[in-house]
Amino acid sequence: MDEKTISPAVIGRLPRYYRYLGDLRDAHIERISSSDLSELMKVTASQIRQDFNNFGGFGQQGYGYNVEYLYTEIGKILGLNEAHRLAIVGAGNLGRALIGYSNYESRGFIFEGIFDRDTNIIGEKVGDLSVRPMEELEEFIVSHKIDIVVIAIPETGAVDVAERVVGCGVKAIWNFAHTDLNVPSDVVVENVHLSDSLMKLSYMLQK
Amino acid sequence: MDEKTISPAVIGRLPRYYRYLGDLRDAHIERISSSDLSELMKVTASQIRQDFNNFGGFGQQGYGYNVEYLYTEIGKILGLNEAHRLAIVGAGNLGRALIGYSNYESRGFIFEGIFDRDTNIIGEKVGDLSVRPMEELEEFIVSHKIDIVVIAIPETGAVDVAERVVGCGVKAIWNFAHTDLNVPSDVVVENVHLSDSLMKLSYMLQK
Repeated sequence: MDEKTISPAVIGRLPRYYRYLGDLRDAHIERISSSDLSELMKVTASQIRQDFNNFGGFGQQGYGYNVEYLYTEIGKILGLNEAHRLAIVGAGNLGRALIGYSNYESRGFIFEGIFDRDTNIIGEKVGDLSVRPMEELEEFIVSHKIDIVVIAIPETGAVDVAERVVGCGVKAIWNFAHTDLNVPSDVVVENVHLSDSLMKLSYMLQK
Repeated sequence: MDEKTISPAVIGRLPRYYRYLGDLRDAHIERISSSDLSELMKVTASQIRQDFNNFGGFGQQGYGYNVEYLYTEIGKILGLNEAHRLAIVGAGNLGRALIGYSNYESRGFIFEGIFDRDTNIIGEKVGDLSVRPMEELEEFIVSHKIDIVVIAIPETGAVDVAERVVGCGVKAIWNFAHTDLNVPSDVVVENVHLSDSLMKLSYMLQK
């Protein structure tokens, strides 16, 4: 298979497959047909087969997919077989909400540090972590081998933070600031622009 | 123009145009050419023209688009010229983060109420609101004419909350629970599945 031909739309659907397969696995279901998976996920069986064919088809037999195998293989494609080490910039409610969601850790996303520019909350506990000052960010990223930085601060400051973390070798940013970041082409950014999402909902509501 | 032909991809890009045009407007820039907008937003000028042609083109002249006009028109298309009344279910860090982001209100999204099932925090202040018990949810939705409900709770309970709010006439749900909701076809759901987003980032990081 040639991974270069896989479209962003297919990639965007993989986490959802992974989520449903995880639920099936947790329910001790061993095999599932593409038509049952189709009904469960409300996508067509042909879409499922097309998506999976991008990765060799995952050995669908007459009697369906092996849930555990499919779950593991999609996890590998998503890079979830390796642990990722994360640092969060921003210890407000959003940063705390992200750290509080324990399922990330079970998928190999380990929060190693949380930073804030507010000197009043330095040292405060957030889960198992203590809030660190922004001055320590670069040193921490290097010494803790951080590979994903989460930007959970407002628009102001986000561009500067992105420059700093890219400057010390970080190649992936999960960006919640309401602004687009300019980063070199070898750095990947996944934006979660919540206000864009709310505006889409407003659009759909009118129809 | 026939609005039925507008693709979800175009709709998905409108909030980003709106965001950039708002920034230009705040910077008192009156006109912008499609090539300057293209450079600023890092999309091709031809993409911009194609997107805008879905809505009649917005009267691009030789000397560019009128920023204020374009901003206002895209806002109307997104339904931002009417106020929306929101209730949040879940007064944890995520619910608090959403209420704390003041820009929503300037775009006509008014948070009217926040609810939680934890009886220990009923009455606690979150911004200008007091946390209300879940028992009051339906009555509040009707009496306060809530048109968007935000589900900011974990997976457990989300499906039940969705059924309750749909049952009292809500037609739009902004869903942060890590699960897909089953709603009637006249109800719109915008999902923000944060773990899906993080998995996409993990995928991109490997390439």
